[in-house]
Amino acid sequence: MDVAAELLAGSVAAGARAIRWLDDGDPRGRTVLERIFAATGRAHIVGITGPPGAGKSTLLDALIMEQRRRGRRVGVLAVDPTSPFTGGALLGDRLRMGRHALDAGVFIRSLATRGEAGGLSRATYDACAVLDAMGFEVVFVETIGVGQEEIDVVALAHSTVIVLVPGLGDEVQAIKAGLMEAGDVLVLNKSDREGAEQTHRHLEMLLHLRQDPSQWQVPLLTSIATRAEGAAALCDALEAHRAWLDQTGGFTRQSERRAEQQFQRLVRALALPRLLEGAEDLLTLVRTRALDPYSATERLLQRQLPRR
Amino acid sequence: MDVAAELLAGSVAAGARAIRWLDDGDPRGRTVLERIFAATGRAHIVGITGPPGAGKSTLLDALIMEQRRRGRRVGVLAVDPTSPFTGGALLGDRLRMGRHALDAGVFIRSLATRGEAGGLSRATYDACAVLDAMGFEVVFVETIGVGQEEIDVVALAHSTVIVLVPGLGDEVQAIKAGLMEAGDVLVLNKSDREGAEQTHRHLEMLLHLRQDPSQWQVPLLTSIATRAEGAAALCDALEAHRAWLDQTGGFTRQSERRAEQQFQRLVRALALPRLLEGAEDLLTLVRTRALDPYSATERLLQRQLPRR
Repeated sequence: MDVAAELLAGSVAAGARAIRWLDDGDPRGRTVLERIFAATGRAHIVGITGPPGAGKSTLLDALIMEQRRRGRRVGVLAVDPTSPFTGGALLGDRLRMGRHALDAGVFIRSLATRGEAGGLSRATYDACAVLDAMGFEVVFVETIGVGQEEIDVVALAHSTVIVLVPGLGDEVQAIKAGLMEAGDVLVLNKSDREGAEQTHRHLEMLLHLRQDPSQWQVPLLTSIATRAEGAAALCDALEAHRAWLDQTGGFTRQSERRAEQQFQRLVRALALPRLLEGAEDLLTLVRTRALDPYSATERLLQRQLPRR
Repeated sequence: MDVAAELLAGSVAAGARAIRWLDDGDPRGRTVLERIFAATGRAHIVGITGPPGAGKSTLLDALIMEQRRRGRRVGVLAVDPTSPFTGGALLGDRLRMGRHALDAGVFIRSLATRGEAGGLSRATYDACAVLDAMGFEVVFVETIGVGQEEIDVVALAHSTVIVLVPGLGDEVQAIKAGLMEAGDVLVLNKSDREGAEQTHRHLEMLLHLRQDPSQWQVPLLTSIATRAEGAAALCDALEAHRAWLDQTGGFTRQSERRAEQQFQRLVRALALPRLLEGAEDLLTLVRTRALDPYSATERLLQRQLPRR
């Protein structure tokens, strides 16, 4: 079967195969990506992030239902190791997610590989391009909101939803603060829990400090994902953000930036082994501390990438 | 003042200045590092990692006291953003840490910068080399145990201590599992808390599954860091691990590996801008999706790093 052609025609089997190849590092994946790349850049890429236990997957589940109600085809990439999509959670969750299995308008894939640098893997970017080329109007990327993954998903997505819960300990305030700067939509999930009002006030204050009237106004929503409450409002907010991006040229800019980043990531990953070819002499000097790493790097670059 | 020479003679002021330069990316830092690098590789580098709220800093505080009692000079690098060393926590903690301020045998520095890739920054590796060259017998590196930082600290340190607490939610099991594989010493802190016995049994079982009789036997310790309970046993365990490393050649191997990694990190960081010089044409093609990132990367490497 011609995987690239079938994938462009929307074949789920072809899409699944391409993503598996890309996740496994099979060279056929790369060939497919070369052929479909021109067809990418249309999907609205939405990152869903937040600390473990915030209920991201449950909220995403409700969001999928709402998008389907609005007639949109939805792709989902799960890269959160604690997500039920990736098999990290309780049986109940997994059964619940199964209800999309018979819906041809929903395509869910979890990615096994993590990035070499702890963030999103190359396969995540590639799989995103596959779902985009398959014609899904919205592609959700669910990721854990800590460290590099959090930074990567913001770079990848057009819109980033940050899911928080009441009563997160003081310890995660630092994480929360980092997340806050990155979000386009904030959702306080489990808003019927004790302490919700206080957390809501706190977030409102933080948002207020940050708002710039000439920029996108980040909305603070509430949800009770287990009862699907708040999903419609979240859908509305994402549509509003998409409209704002279209209006300001941000949608295209972000798509261009994504392609550029993917290129830079590849260069970084593939150049290192080639740069280190024939650098055994320098490695030995550094290992034995006869030469410091800075001087060794300078010598290597001089040798391999002389300035013209 | 000749910072490199004074630092090698143990000057705290010179060490602080060099670390500041390195953290700020001041080129003078690099010059110092070139001169001191040959004097590194002697300190026992110990990583302290674990989830936020596990009590790493409090335990570290008790450990410092115990090391001082045993007559060792101790360097500390705090890169955990939630650590009281870095100013992330409560006032009480910060006051408590202050008690080492008048002890010339303890040198504590927190690093502001985080790595570009979310893990430990280049400055962390460099600052480690500074403390090493200053002659500190033990250098503790305190870092948060999630994502890339966790992986980096294991690569950096000779010995890694993982601090856990009873009753961590199911959500962090994935993180915990990752940490478990990396640790040389496990400590169950706050062991007077409810659920401690159960968590202890659980960890013991996980350890049992993992133990290889020909390898280092990872001990599982308990502590109540707020009362300094368990610090002496932890000190003993670190000494045992150090002795084991010396016996098996692991100490030198790890020091060599650290230097090698620092070299590779530098190459990766400094090569990319140079590789992308004059690649504007390819970037434009990728941005407009006229060329996919894989093919663009291949063309760039062909152009800049032709195989001979």
